[in-house]
Amino acid sequence: GGGWVGGGVGLRGFAAARVAGQRQAEAKLLELPAPESLRSFHEMFASEPHIAGTAGDMRVIAGLEAQFRAMGLEVETHWFWPYLSLPPGDGKAAEVSIVSPEVVELPVAEPPVEGDPFSSRPGLPVGFNAYAAPGDVTAGVVYANYGTKADFEELVRMGVDVRGTIVLARYGGNFRGYKSLFAEQFGAAGVIIFTDPEDSGYAKGLMYPEGGFATPRQLQMGSILVLPYPGDPLTPNYEATEDAPRLDPSAVGLPKIPVQPVGWSAAEKILSRMKGAAVPEGWQGGLPFTYRVEGGPELKVRLVVRQDRGIHKTANVVATLRGSKFPEQKVIVGAHHDAWSYGAGDPLAGTILVLESARSFAELAKQGWRPERTIQFAAWGAEEFGIIGSVEYVERYREDLRDHGVAYINLDMATMGSKFWAAAHPPLARTIIDVTRLVPAIRPDPGTRSPKPTPPGWTVYQDWLSRAGRESKAPTVGNLGGGSDHVGFYFHAGVPSAAMGSSGGRGTSYHSNYDNLHWYRAVVGDDYLPAQMNTRIVNLTVARLANADVVPLDPAAYPPALRGMLDELEKRAGELGGATAKPDFGAVRRAIDGLEASADRYNAALERATAEGGADAGALASASALLRDGERAWLAPGGLPGRAWYRHQFMANDEDSGYAAWSLPEVRLNIERRNADQLARSVARLAEVLGRVGERIDAAAAVLRGEGAGGGAVGK
Amino acid sequence: GGGWVGGGVGLRGFAAARVAGQRQAEAKLLELPAPESLRSFHEMFASEPHIAGTAGDMRVIAGLEAQFRAMGLEVETHWFWPYLSLPPGDGKAAEVSIVSPEVVELPVAEPPVEGDPFSSRPGLPVGFNAYAAPGDVTAGVVYANYGTKADFEELVRMGVDVRGTIVLARYGGNFRGYKSLFAEQFGAAGVIIFTDPEDSGYAKGLMYPEGGFATPRQLQMGSILVLPYPGDPLTPNYEATEDAPRLDPSAVGLPKIPVQPVGWSAAEKILSRMKGAAVPEGWQGGLPFTYRVEGGPELKVRLVVRQDRGIHKTANVVATLRGSKFPEQKVIVGAHHDAWSYGAGDPLAGTILVLESARSFAELAKQGWRPERTIQFAAWGAEEFGIIGSVEYVERYREDLRDHGVAYINLDMATMGSKFWAAAHPPLARTIIDVTRLVPAIRPDPGTRSPKPTPPGWTVYQDWLSRAGRESKAPTVGNLGGGSDHVGFYFHAGVPSAAMGSSGGRGTSYHSNYDNLHWYRAVVGDDYLPAQMNTRIVNLTVARLANADVVPLDPAAYPPALRGMLDELEKRAGELGGATAKPDFGAVRRAIDGLEASADRYNAALERATAEGGADAGALASASALLRDGERAWLAPGGLPGRAWYRHQFMANDEDSGYAAWSLPEVRLNIERRNADQLARSVARLAEVLGRVGERIDAAAAVLRGEGAGGGAVGK
Repeated sequence: GGGWVGGGVGLRGFAAARVAGQRQAEAKLLELPAPESLRSFHEMFASEPHIAGTAGDMRVIAGLEAQFRAMGLEVETHWFWPYLSLPPGDGKAAEVSIVSPEVVELPVAEPPVEGDPFSSRPGLPVGFNAYAAPGDVTAGVVYANYGTKADFEELVRMGVDVRGTIVLARYGGNFRGYKSLFAEQFGAAGVIIFTDPEDSGYAKGLMYPEGGFATPRQLQMGSILVLPYPGDPLTPNYEATEDAPRLDPSAVGLPKIPVQPVGWSAAEKILSRMKGAAVPEGWQGGLPFTYRVEGGPELKVRLVVRQDRGIHKTANVVATLRGSKFPEQKVIVGAHHDAWSYGAGDPLAGTILVLESARSFAELAKQGWRPERTIQFAAWGAEEFGIIGSVEYVERYREDLRDHGVAYINLDMATMGSKFWAAAHPPLARTIIDVTRLVPAIRPDPGTRSPKPTPPGWTVYQDWLSRAGRESKAPTVGNLGGGSDHVGFYFHAGVPSAAMGSSGGRGTSYHSNYDNLHWYRAVVGDDYLPAQMNTRIVNLTVARLANADVVPLDPAAYPPALRGMLDELEKRAGELGGATAKPDFGAVRRAIDGLEASADRYNAALERATAEGGADAGALASASALLRDGERAWLAPGGLPGRAWYRHQFMANDEDSGYAAWSLPEVRLNIERRNADQLARSVARLAEVLGRVGERIDAAAAVLRGEGAGGGAVGK
Repeated sequence: GGGWVGGGVGLRGFAAARVAGQRQAEAKLLELPAPESLRSFHEMFASEPHIAGTAGDMRVIAGLEAQFRAMGLEVETHWFWPYLSLPPGDGKAAEVSIVSPEVVELPVAEPPVEGDPFSSRPGLPVGFNAYAAPGDVTAGVVYANYGTKADFEELVRMGVDVRGTIVLARYGGNFRGYKSLFAEQFGAAGVIIFTDPEDSGYAKGLMYPEGGFATPRQLQMGSILVLPYPGDPLTPNYEATEDAPRLDPSAVGLPKIPVQPVGWSAAEKILSRMKGAAVPEGWQGGLPFTYRVEGGPELKVRLVVRQDRGIHKTANVVATLRGSKFPEQKVIVGAHHDAWSYGAGDPLAGTILVLESARSFAELAKQGWRPERTIQFAAWGAEEFGIIGSVEYVERYREDLRDHGVAYINLDMATMGSKFWAAAHPPLARTIIDVTRLVPAIRPDPGTRSPKPTPPGWTVYQDWLSRAGRESKAPTVGNLGGGSDHVGFYFHAGVPSAAMGSSGGRGTSYHSNYDNLHWYRAVVGDDYLPAQMNTRIVNLTVARLANADVVPLDPAAYPPALRGMLDELEKRAGELGGATAKPDFGAVRRAIDGLEASADRYNAALERATAEGGADAGALASASALLRDGERAWLAPGGLPGRAWYRHQFMANDEDSGYAAWSLPEVRLNIERRNADQLARSVARLAEVLGRVGERIDAAAAVLRGEGAGGGAVGK
């Protein structure tokens, strides 16, 4: 890459004359985030359960509007009408019991925990998996480990027939929707998903409230929707307005069998009564007996699930700070606001950063500083049901985002400890890394065994780097997979996206009623220093994206990322064997070499153009637009094969587990399918895309060098 | 290596004219081993507990003598008088109890198991760790994971003081003697070693008697002797005859604190009452609560151990089939005969192979076939207390073994399943691999989940290879570490050694009263096909070693083995860092290249010399002697640094855990100590040794080519 001597702290993309002003603003953006303010936002929105579509949800929406307005920001409340699935209000969402050889009622709700006042509030949600089919089944049981595709295939190899049975699967290894989908596909009558102590309970660490790990009756709620598109299930590709044309629910692939989450105290009663052969290697969990695959003929379990599917009203709340120079260009920071219960961790540990960052920029605006581009602070609705709010928003503003979306930063559940992490579209990574050099690292997480005190003067950068491999020269930035609100911006609209946050708190209350302020403060801390640290990083990242003369997307990040991806794909192809065992990536590798040369030329041109006496503002703006435009070259107009809503050819979520990232997804798919013809075609297409991305970078470099080039094309 | 076309089945080292005769003998040696005979030996010696020095031991010795004599073999009963440590005969070996905050007596004996008549016999040994110091201590507790050196160091880092406490350590990760040694060195008052269900119990598979894994009260007996030499603790380097001069026991580093094994049902009662911080990563076991490091001030445990140390009489029983041509040269096959209880698995699952192999060769001798070299079949005494019998034997016959020992094959606990394995001094590996091509593979192990039937016509070679890495071209042969009777032959006398056997039985009764015929037949099988398979492999291996014109030690095995070892050492050095982070192995690598050239020349010469019209018998015998003599070049006259009894510079057991192998041990030691000066010296010494090994190989090649060379030197 280009010679940014002194590394990350340089203000990449800023004309020399604007550096001092930016540094001044950044100093304030470091200073403004305050633990007391973060704490107060947290208390405001974590005070009651607020599942999308409920009264609590409405109160949160109103509260968000009020907070953003009080900051002096423009507020858009974007109402939408998604198809949700909710248990009846009578608290009788489910019944699980053993009916033979003896009758044993099993708990489906979480009991109060000593010292945690939130856990004893009346009317807390009883465990449910949204979109589970209502039903009442009594059947024998089969244990399917994590319920991955490989696990169900292993059951077939073992000669175990899951047809007509109730499948017990433990949480972990994939998105829960795939557990129930595979169970349904293999013919199961119902699914019980349990939290195993090996994965989340006593085997991980001390249980709540002494520690932060799952208790015997703690359970994980969550949606089980799996469709070839995220967002509202009835309005793919279109906004779910009140009167939008909708698909018939029966025509959508919604779950057809009852599915229910339980804690391990319930699962233990079933598992310990199973008979016959022991589980294969890797299937044993943390309960104190040998797990078995089959329940045997005598053991019968009854599963009753009650849920009502229907259209509900909810909203995204989006606050805007208009840009002074390029108001149409948008940098967006978001996190959802809906939760399965109190949501102190998920999502509010991220949402409060959106609020505090908004407060920081609003305060700065009051002091007379405005960004050149527009910044938007978004709190999305109904994320938990299927990333609905943000996707409806993207579907509403698709063209505007495609043309003017500079970057999207997602902050779902972003502050769960002291250890900073980030996942990003590669050209964004450098800016994030750069700003962590300016933010102080904080104290270790509570409950850390023999914590090493943070060295004086350490920055987040140093702390983050210290956790990378011994020989790493940079902190590790991951790839963005599925599972949260960046999905619409990144995979559908092609807006370069990132997620960031911090982890390390010793425990989990994910999707449980214990995910409340009492748990959060015991596990993550009650000083809000991690949230302050993260808001500082968000503030600086956003300020650079919103204010640089040339958007700081570094194309030099592509070649190493792409080469690593090809190496991984070759490895995967070799493992799978068959006709595509040795893919020919020659054309792509040559295109990457070309892209690397383009990126080098671009960075050299950028350095000269932003130095004193460099290019004029118009040239910088043109280069910036070309660079942004180049990002859209990744979008496949017809979408990815078999899932047209996903259009990004650099990255998608995987197709079998839901959370993981699939790099170069079309190539990956054809390797997974071992389809040599299609693979060759997708490799050729990828090489073309790389060529188009490189052309825009070359054009941007030419503009920076004052070689004219298409101002007209750029205006788009 | 040389061109042994067709690979392993070729009769390496046999003159062309002798091949047909050897093949005929081998056909019989494949045919003779019989399941009924193996079963009958098993019943004969597994009928009662026979701890060394007890009445049962004496009956086993007499029985072994009788069996070997009945076969028509010469029998030597080699009596020796080791210093042993035994619990009193009253069954009151130990008491373990919680005394505060409440009194709870904990079990130290194994209860009868339903359907297992052996488990209910009166007078079975109560759990004890031989050489534990008698004592009666009451103290607080600390949990030390596996009690490795790293674990105790981690406790120090955590600020946990083990001084004056009773340490709880779980079995696994090292030789139990190191658990108690480190505990003692760190100041503990006593040690309780328990079997954790994660390592050996329900988390591994179904428990005995439904499956084969450890029950809640099953415990592991065993010696905790750790000295810089194996064998009798009072007579290092010398045979423990009745009137040998002996060290004063107080001058020997015997354990000074009480140590006791228990099952997890006892450990659970203590562990579940501990207080305070949770254990670090990797320390959690399989009991259903979070393990903690400290017991806290209220929890007190009492540990009472009673043992009497003293000199006892026991014996090795060695049967000899005299060689027809080179009677002074010896191929030795051995396994110990003493056990902690019935010993159906340890050692008899190997000892019966020694007996059956002896019966095979004796039968063949009756039919007129005799090996050219002498074959000895040995059943060693008092192995369990510290590899005593075989070491005393080696110390008695040290010079003879050094001059005439061709190879030693160890068969401790050798038949624990259907999956063949081997560990060997590299030049021996090829012969073992070769013969497995002639032995049929057998059925899968009992209790295997969805077993794949063994393909018709499959050999052990194919089965073994199928378990190596996907791209492996040969089965994996391991390195020989510590822990059994090869130690004296290999590490002290320099006799090339191997161990072999088969594993795969789903369970463990190691060092427990459940290691009896009932357990063995349930877990390994009652058809004795695995034992028959192994005896066939032993027979052919021994027949080739005993009868080849040139002993089949393949020097071409050294270079790849040595290079792999250096790579490992470089990796380890890099991990440890410091002054020896980047060792300079140039001299050794050059010596290996030289050795490789020597081995290639030797193999080419051997092929020509053993072809029709090749070298005469005298030249082959001279080459054979030179090759054997070359093996002794590995012996350091002054022994290894700090443990002079160990003299082999190619291999030793490790110094911190007892069971693992340390390749190139002097180099390894200096890397572990990060002593750059000593490392440079040990590297230079190793290069010299390799030069000397290579010289003998060159000399052997010269003899084979008819270039004369020192017949005189060879006669030694």
